[in-house]
Amino acid sequence: MSKNILYIAMSLDGMIAKEDHSLDWLLKAEGEGDNGYNDFYSGISSIVMGNRTYQEVLKMTNEKPYQDRPVYVLSRTEQGDGYANFTSESVDTLLSSLQEKHGGPVWVVGGGEVIKACMDSDSIDEYYIAVISCVLGEGIPLFPKGTKCTELKLVDTEVYNQIVMLHYVKKQAE
Amino acid sequence: MSKNILYIAMSLDGMIAKEDHSLDWLLKAEGEGDNGYNDFYSGISSIVMGNRTYQEVLKMTNEKPYQDRPVYVLSRTEQGDGYANFTSESVDTLLSSLQEKHGGPVWVVGGGEVIKACMDSDSIDEYYIAVISCVLGEGIPLFPKGTKCTELKLVDTEVYNQIVMLHYVKKQAE
Repeated sequence: MSKNILYIAMSLDGMIAKEDHSLDWLLKAEGEGDNGYNDFYSGISSIVMGNRTYQEVLKMTNEKPYQDRPVYVLSRTEQGDGYANFTSESVDTLLSSLQEKHGGPVWVVGGGEVIKACMDSDSIDEYYIAVISCVLGEGIPLFPKGTKCTELKLVDTEVYNQIVMLHYVKKQAE
Repeated sequence: MSKNILYIAMSLDGMIAKEDHSLDWLLKAEGEGDNGYNDFYSGISSIVMGNRTYQEVLKMTNEKPYQDRPVYVLSRTEQGDGYANFTSESVDTLLSSLQEKHGGPVWVVGGGEVIKACMDSDSIDEYYIAVISCVLGEGIPLFPKGTKCTELKLVDTEVYNQIVMLHYVKKQAE
């Protein structure tokens, strides 16, 4: 079954970036190999993120990111850059349409507001959350205040040196 | 070596209680056996917590909590209840004195403000953080905003059904 997957790293206090958007704490995290990234990436068929996240990703590389997968960027105002597909569609209808169009799991990259919208509409089927061994004390939270209260089901954990990958699925109504 | 240990549960988004202090999400967490609690508890020699946490703990039981260990409650105003030892000492000097007095690890129970003060003074030597499989979306954070940015060293993880126990130690300066 196709599904929407959140795959992301956070500090132990639940931040995905410092207040100034910096990721130095994440880049210096001591992992192991590629921390399972290639295995994950090989299984996904398209990529969705918010525009702010996309702009941050662009800053981190000279090449267009994720060139071998269709990239969708959620934005109410931006019209596109000739590379990514910009859309102002609501995230839940977008995710359904990508399931049909590309026939495989969608990677929801972030950031917090996109994730919040996904959780509001129960659109995330799987969660891979890499917990980094540090407390930031400030920053941009993975789950912003007001995120829908959500029970998950733990299916697996994996340790990559100093990184703990927590793997959850959506809890089915019982 | 004696040490100060934080042993606590949090939601995946880093909350130790809901906004109204309720712990229903924690009490219904599906663990395994006692989730390692008795093993941990048998190794500690005294217990420290903030007064708000102490008052919440009192509400949860008809008996005085932790009767077989000396209990210390940090409060600037309270004078004691004939059971716990109330003190307005700063948490770092209190923890050092308990190490000497009781000669074994101190359990720092919480809450957030006490933990923040401990981290400000680098007083926590070990962290056991039980991650519960739910996102609350609001509540009282384990690491309040402004907690000192702190790198930790992961030493172990343990899975108890739906609870992941993350075990860290203080990262030594290199």
